[in-house]
Amino acid sequence: MTVAEKTIGCVKAATDILGDKWTPQLLRFFANEESLRFCQLQDLVGGINPRTLSARLTHLETAGIIEKTTNESSTRCDYRLTKKGTALLPIIRDMERWSSHYETV
Amino acid sequence: MTVAEKTIGCVKAATDILGDKWTPQLLRFFANEESLRFCQLQDLVGGINPRTLSARLTHLETAGIIEKTTNESSTRCDYRLTKKGTALLPIIRDMERWSSHYETV
Repeated sequence: MTVAEKTIGCVKAATDILGDKWTPQLLRFFANEESLRFCQLQDLVGGINPRTLSARLTHLETAGIIEKTTNESSTRCDYRLTKKGTALLPIIRDMERWSSHYETV
Repeated sequence: MTVAEKTIGCVKAATDILGDKWTPQLLRFFANEESLRFCQLQDLVGGINPRTLSARLTHLETAGIIEKTTNESSTRCDYRLTKKGTALLPIIRDMERWSSHYETV
C-alpha cells in the first residue's frame, strides 16, 4: 500500500457510507427511533424508490452500520443502528447543521 | 417543495460536497496549510488525475468552499478555504476519526 492509498484510507470508510444522496438522511431518522421498519423508512424518506431503499439498507447491513432483527411472533423485521452506525450520528448532525447554516434553500 | 424535498435539503448541501471519493481528503490538507497550490495538492493527494483535481477544485470554488487568489508578482495561484469551507473541517476530522476507529485497513 502506497502512502497515497493510506491517506485515502483515512477518510475513505466514512465517505463510502456518507457519500450518497440517500444514506445520510436515512440514518438520521434512527437518531429519534430505536428501530424502524422498511415501510416506515419509505414514508420518512419520501421520494425514495423501494428498490433503491432496499439496496441502501443491504449495503448498510453489509457494512455493519445497521442490523436487521426479525420478531419471532411475526414476519415483520426491524432495522436498528449498530454501535458502529450510532457513532455516525454526531457527524450527520454536524452535516445537517452545516447545511442549514450555509444553504439558502 | 414537498416535505420530502425539504427533508433531503437538510443534509443535501453537505452530502453534495463530502460525498465524493476525493473531496474530503482534498479539504483535510487545508487544515494544516493556509493556502495550497495546484501542484502541492496534486502531490498531497497522490494518485489523483490532474483533470479530476481541476474539476474538483472548480466545483469547490463554485460552491464557495475554496477561493483562488492570484499573486500579482507571479502567475502562481493559490487555493484557500473560505469561512464556509473552514466550517467543514470539524466534520472531516470526525469522519477521519470514525474511519480509523472502525476500518481495519
